[in-house]
Amino acid sequence: MTRWEMLAQAMPREIDGVPIDAAVITSEENCRYISGFHASARVAVVTREAAYLLTDFRYGEAARMQVKDCKVVVYRKLSKSIEEILRRHDIRGVLLEREKLTLAQAEMYRNVCGQWNALPVTDATLDTLLRELRAVKTEAEIREIQAAQAITDAAFSHILQYIDGTRSERDIALELEFFMRRQGAEKIAFDTIVVSGANGSMCHGVPSDKKIQKGDLITMDFGAVVNGYHSDMTRTVAYGQVNEEQQAVYRTVLQAQLAAIEAVRAGVPCNEVDRAAREVIDRCYPGAFGHTTGHGVGLEIHEWPCFAPSCQTPTKPGMVITVEPGIYLEGRFGVRIEDMVLVTENGCENLTRSAKELLVL
Amino acid sequence: MTRWEMLAQAMPREIDGVPIDAAVITSEENCRYISGFHASARVAVVTREAAYLLTDFRYGEAARMQVKDCKVVVYRKLSKSIEEILRRHDIRGVLLEREKLTLAQAEMYRNVCGQWNALPVTDATLDTLLRELRAVKTEAEIREIQAAQAITDAAFSHILQYIDGTRSERDIALELEFFMRRQGAEKIAFDTIVVSGANGSMCHGVPSDKKIQKGDLITMDFGAVVNGYHSDMTRTVAYGQVNEEQQAVYRTVLQAQLAAIEAVRAGVPCNEVDRAAREVIDRCYPGAFGHTTGHGVGLEIHEWPCFAPSCQTPTKPGMVITVEPGIYLEGRFGVRIEDMVLVTENGCENLTRSAKELLVL
Repeated sequence: MTRWEMLAQAMPREIDGVPIDAAVITSEENCRYISGFHASARVAVVTREAAYLLTDFRYGEAARMQVKDCKVVVYRKLSKSIEEILRRHDIRGVLLEREKLTLAQAEMYRNVCGQWNALPVTDATLDTLLRELRAVKTEAEIREIQAAQAITDAAFSHILQYIDGTRSERDIALELEFFMRRQGAEKIAFDTIVVSGANGSMCHGVPSDKKIQKGDLITMDFGAVVNGYHSDMTRTVAYGQVNEEQQAVYRTVLQAQLAAIEAVRAGVPCNEVDRAAREVIDRCYPGAFGHTTGHGVGLEIHEWPCFAPSCQTPTKPGMVITVEPGIYLEGRFGVRIEDMVLVTENGCENLTRSAKELLVL
Repeated sequence: MTRWEMLAQAMPREIDGVPIDAAVITSEENCRYISGFHASARVAVVTREAAYLLTDFRYGEAARMQVKDCKVVVYRKLSKSIEEILRRHDIRGVLLEREKLTLAQAEMYRNVCGQWNALPVTDATLDTLLRELRAVKTEAEIREIQAAQAITDAAFSHILQYIDGTRSERDIALELEFFMRRQGAEKIAFDTIVVSGANGSMCHGVPSDKKIQKGDLITMDFGAVVNGYHSDMTRTVAYGQVNEEQQAVYRTVLQAQLAAIEAVRAGVPCNEVDRAAREVIDRCYPGAFGHTTGHGVGLEIHEWPCFAPSCQTPTKPGMVITVEPGIYLEGRFGVRIEDMVLVTENGCENLTRSAKELLVL
């Protein structure tokens, strides 16, 4: 079954008395998921009988080459082309995205629907359907994520040779990026984080011109994109000997991360995985782990579901989620270790291959 | 006057009977413009008496260091913190962004306003005020854009030495990117376009593994970001001798580009500048110039206003806008030449320094 057919099948027959027979998908990644196409101008329309990918003249040639499952429409005026589709399929109710549609777009679609007496539905139905479909990856999608992660693992091996006292955080971040791009990453998955020494306590710190010093812990959080799919990993390594406290913090984070990975199995609620990591850290370093344990990864770097205290969603086979606990001691140092795991019936497969013992460079 | 004070001063006293005494600014670049701060979690609230930058614990430390003109609030729950500000300033009407606010965000803000009997206003007022403020750059902003363009010009000089028959479009794009990043660009301004030969007819083509061949025209469209400010330039160069038709097309594009630059002067409507370029091209190559002549550049790569047939906005001193006509002969080749110009009282200053005669490598 194609993705748009899966969506069409999952769409409810009606919502609050409105019969639902189409969905209009405007956001970049949702549209890419349904159509396989991405460009700055694109909308997918899914009905129960057919799906359409609409784009403008700049991308028409590329769309006709790349889009397999949807009919390609090159529009002059988007609203006119959508109205034609609503008419052709006699659409009465249209699901719209709520999380990503802007007020200006919503008004345009309300007007289009109004032209043809169709009713727009902007509750969270379409967002929820799409995030649930996207959360469970197909084998093809997993291969793309693995390809992205292979580049990321290779970049980690490469950077270990590169790091020394002449390099700044920014030097290391650039080298990681260039390496991944040269290896075929179409882009980097997010702004690379490289923080060292006291900067390491900022979990979202920006790489600075600070040079690496003996005794620093260096946290590197980075990833690649291959065919739209992201990877995400973090390693903390030592430059020169680090003290007993740094080692103890590292051991605690690693223990928390292994406990969380151990807890992953299809059917286990996400917050149980979070709790497994959090309990280990809170025992020795209460308050030092201020973020959630992990997030889904796919066409976006942050996807649903999350290993978060508030997320009761049971995991399913095929979900790819990060496991990334950390300890941040403000103004002193920080440690984070992050892998991506693929949920399976009996546990999980770790998609990240790099070693996790504390490396002393 | 600070930026938030300029916004507060420009806010209308009332809209449709609703007294306006605050604006909530959620979108990344608008918030950065007002507060000078950027992070994945941030909202600015501007009242007539004070302005606030709200962020979460991850960015609190950075915000306190970087934000000068707004009070920094680190929130646990965004809606609670906003409600407190509305209460403190006895706010009755709140401007919201329309182009960038999602339906989900709008609902949250409507609820927050409802808690405190304030009315949200989601017409285009706030978007328009901010885009007009942002369109006219301060001297400090122009310096940032010039710094970004200096890196871009340097990358162009560098790449001329790099291009040869062993390089693919993708090699060239990567080399441009790496060069700009090494020179201090915090990121590239947009996905670099490098298209050659027949690929050159796709004005938004993605760099491929096609190697450069003798007789190719190569179009490179690229830019850098410095402190959030973008640059944008395009050059088309020849690799080996190109034929008479290719040269004639190049001359026409250059003539169109110079005509448009010549037309720029404070007070001239944007569409007159577009027409100046379009007339030159339409005379010899009707239909071959399918996009608009230019767009504003600043904290975003595409800003208001545009040199477009439909844009009657008069230009103002301090606007920075691209001038980038092109000719695209489908399946054969294409040419585009792009500079950024700063509108002045008597004409414009070209911020792009690279030469524009046809370079034959």
